[in-house]
Amino acid sequence: MRGAAPVCVIGAGLSGLAVAHALAARGVDFVCLEKAPEVGGIWRKPQAGERGPGYRSLHLNTAKQLTGFAAFPMPDSYPAYPRHDEMAAYLRAFAEWAGLTPRIEFGTEVLSVRQDADGSWLVTSRDARGSSVVRRFARVVVASGANAEPVLPDPAPAGSESFTGRVLHAVDYLEGSGFRGQRVVVVGLGASAVDIATDLSRHAARTVLSVRRGLHVVPKQLYGISCDVIAESPWFTTMTLAERREYIEQALLVARGRLSDYGLPEPDHPIFSSAVTVSDEIFSRIRHGAVTPRPGIDSFSGNLVRFTDGSAEEADAVVWCTGYRMSYPYLPADCPVGPSGRVELYRRIAAPDRPGLYFVGLIRPVGAITRALEAQARWVARVIGGEEALPSEDVMRKEVDDYLSGIAARYGQGLGASIQIDVVPYVQEFHPR
Amino acid sequence: MRGAAPVCVIGAGLSGLAVAHALAARGVDFVCLEKAPEVGGIWRKPQAGERGPGYRSLHLNTAKQLTGFAAFPMPDSYPAYPRHDEMAAYLRAFAEWAGLTPRIEFGTEVLSVRQDADGSWLVTSRDARGSSVVRRFARVVVASGANAEPVLPDPAPAGSESFTGRVLHAVDYLEGSGFRGQRVVVVGLGASAVDIATDLSRHAARTVLSVRRGLHVVPKQLYGISCDVIAESPWFTTMTLAERREYIEQALLVARGRLSDYGLPEPDHPIFSSAVTVSDEIFSRIRHGAVTPRPGIDSFSGNLVRFTDGSAEEADAVVWCTGYRMSYPYLPADCPVGPSGRVELYRRIAAPDRPGLYFVGLIRPVGAITRALEAQARWVARVIGGEEALPSEDVMRKEVDDYLSGIAARYGQGLGASIQIDVVPYVQEFHPR
Repeated sequence: MRGAAPVCVIGAGLSGLAVAHALAARGVDFVCLEKAPEVGGIWRKPQAGERGPGYRSLHLNTAKQLTGFAAFPMPDSYPAYPRHDEMAAYLRAFAEWAGLTPRIEFGTEVLSVRQDADGSWLVTSRDARGSSVVRRFARVVVASGANAEPVLPDPAPAGSESFTGRVLHAVDYLEGSGFRGQRVVVVGLGASAVDIATDLSRHAARTVLSVRRGLHVVPKQLYGISCDVIAESPWFTTMTLAERREYIEQALLVARGRLSDYGLPEPDHPIFSSAVTVSDEIFSRIRHGAVTPRPGIDSFSGNLVRFTDGSAEEADAVVWCTGYRMSYPYLPADCPVGPSGRVELYRRIAAPDRPGLYFVGLIRPVGAITRALEAQARWVARVIGGEEALPSEDVMRKEVDDYLSGIAARYGQGLGASIQIDVVPYVQEFHPR
Repeated sequence: MRGAAPVCVIGAGLSGLAVAHALAARGVDFVCLEKAPEVGGIWRKPQAGERGPGYRSLHLNTAKQLTGFAAFPMPDSYPAYPRHDEMAAYLRAFAEWAGLTPRIEFGTEVLSVRQDADGSWLVTSRDARGSSVVRRFARVVVASGANAEPVLPDPAPAGSESFTGRVLHAVDYLEGSGFRGQRVVVVGLGASAVDIATDLSRHAARTVLSVRRGLHVVPKQLYGISCDVIAESPWFTTMTLAERREYIEQALLVARGRLSDYGLPEPDHPIFSSAVTVSDEIFSRIRHGAVTPRPGIDSFSGNLVRFTDGSAEEADAVVWCTGYRMSYPYLPADCPVGPSGRVELYRRIAAPDRPGLYFVGLIRPVGAITRALEAQARWVARVIGGEEALPSEDVMRKEVDDYLSGIAARYGQGLGASIQIDVVPYVQEFHPR
């Protein structure tokens, strides 16, 4: 590894900043590569008007006290759930406060990360002027987030090619004002679907929410307490999974009733066995006629959208909020998603067969992600700084297998399932013994 | 009473239409006088752009199945909580369906209602062309609603005259778009205050909600059931008042938490001892920083609004959502509000000392008003049609006194308290024995 710089951190969003901060705190030398002209990741895009999973109505779904870094709380002037631009400003302030900004190369896109024969990592990147460079690093920390590739239904519904309206994916949705007076069908029941339907309902002439499969939709708070705060509270985390389910499902029956009370399909699985959709507004919008629920799309014909219950709607636009596919185009094809089709990372961080490659932020928590990110970042910094040694590849593989079979029992075999965590037990695993 | 027409109904809103329908159903001849050019009362004003207690974002706070007339349900296409224009269209459709439209004199404003020596009623009205006419009726049913006189704080806060911003009362608020980019202080925690603050928060640069005194703010539904439906459900109405309070307050703790969780003052009285404020959105708007709570206003100074906690806000406008004063300018000064300062009506309908004068709709229910209106209208029609006799003035006075002392124990001595009813027991009193 002669000539290798110590550490390359890819990304300067929430995850990358957590890593950079942890490395800096331990005096580990690093360079952080960030494609955008400033820190903030997905949070800076809506204000910049850039394509991405965010939109102008986006707010945090988790409380500021758990979403901000522990060492640098969000300002008192911030609301409980800040908006994207407040979150972006906070991340800029954090980077300044932590002295990280000078160590970030902005406008630098990573094109390829490959391991060399000596175990070092060759990182090819392109700067804002288009010149490429290859650099050698002893370690690489991937904190860029998966490159979100929009997912569209495959196969497309019958007659899709005949549809005369506008078709877009949530990734291209920024705000509702361009849909004024139009009839729009929003497809999905994930975070983007409910947020975008709510936003559109204040601009469009008619907003239809087409939902094929029930998911658990929860308000941002229960008992006046932010749900992510509940998820990390000792009185909650010390319950069994069955007790936690019972507790939240009972509270949801009081606060919300059943999804079928709103014309939405009931989930076919208990809560906490899939990602939860968070929305304060979608139920009220439905009750006020601002959003009309429909089942899944059966087919298109001209300006007509036909649903699986035989009903139909004329539409000027369809917004597919059908999610994103995990993709790391700059990494080897079988990493971090292994042959099993699932993420295969020791402690959801380290590639067992690729020493020196780490992932931070490739997790999907029940609740706020930040405490888990911080624990990941500190642990990576300890490993890189030599304070902690990784076990053998066999031991790491066994941990991965055990984790994935445990998670499969609760969440199923999908790719998304393989990155699900409960924050508190996850963080506790990292406490130095 | 020679030469007297049988019945004059004043108003063709929800209450007046209920009365007209009940009279028509019994074959009682009547004329209905309506100031506006069409039926609908307060519900037609926002769309018409007219001054009134409604605004463009106004929706029903009670469910369509209890707010529509029992004999003429709202259309299936309507949402659970229709908007003002849907409600107005529904009332027009009801009037057509019930054959009432030809019996309404539109554009006719009542100027004076006085009892003549022979007990008949002289009704002075002015038509759209400005000509006045005096007509004699055997009976008058006042169903116009109290003429809502805006209430402003008296005395005004110190420095009010120096305030450089715009000042208006909720009665003059129609929509938020005229406040784009402005800093607005909304005063109050009643229905108008929370609706207007929510609406403004989508247009104004900053929306402050100034609240002097805590009120019970409830979502439109609990347990997935509209709160007005709960209020009329046998399982609920058969509880004692203490049990009902406990039940709803527990549900509110789950669905909403405490008002102090949102920076709002806690009510100093249990629920169901004052009018409840209904809002699905205000709490979420506060949590997202779109509405900022503050205590009551202490004083004004230039463009500065100072609050009782010493904090201050620059403001471009203040919207006083400080309610309305009951007022019937066309009636004798001491009717229906008697010397006690409270409404003194037998069964909340009949003036004991003024035979032939009835009020329909002068009630403030826990829940939806319509079933109570219908019961009032049917009873008035039975009395007028001779199927039912009124008791003696003494008996009526005793009922009023008993009612007012009962209500005072729960709601206090105020004028608003004197028209509070629980719908189910109220309606049951009218069942023919």
